Amino acid sequence: MAEIIKVHGSTLSTAAQRVFACLYEKELEFEFIPVNMAVGEHKKEPFLALNPFGQVPAFEQGDLKLFESRAITQYIAHGYADKGTPLVIPGKQMATLSVWMEVEAHQFDPVASKLNWELVFKPMFGIPTDNAAVEENEAKLGKVLDVYESRLAQSKYLGGDIFTLADLHHLPNISCAMRTHVKKLFDSRPHVSAWVADITSRPAWSKVVAMNK
Amino acid sequence: MAEIIKVHGSTLSTAAQRVFACLYEKELEFEFIPVNMAVGEHKKEPFLALNPFGQVPAFEQGDLKLFESRAITQYIAHGYADKGTPLVIPGKQMATLSVWMEVEAHQFDPVASKLNWELVFKPMFGIPTDNAAVEENEAKLGKVLDVYESRLAQSKYLGGDIFTLADLHHLPNISCAMRTHVKKLFDSRPHVSAWVADITSRPAWSKVVAMNK
Repeated sequence: MAEIIKVHGSTLSTAAQRVFACLYEKELEFEFIPVNMAVGEHKKEPFLALNPFGQVPAFEQGDLKLFESRAITQYIAHGYADKGTPLVIPGKQMATLSVWMEVEAHQFDPVASKLNWELVFKPMFGIPTDNAAVEENEAKLGKVLDVYESRLAQSKYLGGDIFTLADLHHLPNISCAMRTHVKKLFDSRPHVSAWVADITSRPAWSKVVAMNK
Repeated sequence: MAEIIKVHGSTLSTAAQRVFACLYEKELEFEFIPVNMAVGEHKKEPFLALNPFGQVPAFEQGDLKLFESRAITQYIAHGYADKGTPLVIPGKQMATLSVWMEVEAHQFDPVASKLNWELVFKPMFGIPTDNAAVEENEAKLGKVLDVYESRLAQSKYLGGDIFTLADLHHLPNISCAMRTHVKKLFDSRPHVSAWVADITSRPAWSKVVAMNK
């Protein structure tokens, strides 16, 4: 597996940031190949040969081509188990870790992504924010974070005692939401707030943030 | 792992059906514990102790408690690798299988679930169907199935040459959608249509269908 890792994407993409964070945690070198989404490069060949759904990121390593950020991070975490931060837990505890990875994907991501779209990306593109959608998704996020508050009162990280992919997958959306008024939903829950401070201060995440500076 | 498997849920729930299909493929015995969603049992204790998000199914085996259907199926597939249908592929091909599991979760499920909600469940509950949402999601599903048609022209199943979780996770939503006019979107694509006929005729899936008879 000595072939060079290439990641096609944009440093602004939360999905691409998920993959960058994983690679930095694993201390793996990679080549970043920017995709110019402003001119729609992700919706045309040759990018569509990497991901037929036309979404960043896409991952290449020799003849292995992957897409979907969470499939890429799982490949990296399992394929490089002995390098850098473990990120997955072997054995029966993997089941609990899987539960919280699914929670991120199905409970957290849809509402957090929608809020970030309305509050960060729409203003960036000059599109008016839908305030009713913001209100609805803030209420939903509050309920999700209530469950996180209970979980994090019992367990330092979502998947167990160590930082894993279940936490890492949240970083891009949390980091983005913390720049909006939605920050108050995280700050007002003490265990959630401590967890956010912990995971966003990881050196690997700082390297992802630095990619946009 | 000789402790009895308990699945709390409803035979009408597509998420619970995903777990039942997996258990039948693995030829594992389990106890089904109905949750009366009509009276909101899933939003109250004791169910909330099994899944704080108040959604079916929930899984119990001794002191192991899991929720999120795709986390449960992954636990079963990896934990009982030697029983029944393999459902996962060891080694590097697992990465490709993960990609297609993520595609199901992020590209297929949101549109198929929305269509089934509008066309099957809303009429069942006497709620009017939102025709604009149907039209929008039919167009999205068509685009997703175009990608599936290309994939299935190259590979018998989504994850590779054998039936795996990547296919299995689709069964409940496909089976439900095939009872609506959305069936035409599957039937008009030859490789998708052959794949649907293949996976819906599996004996394990017939047992799930029989639970509602």
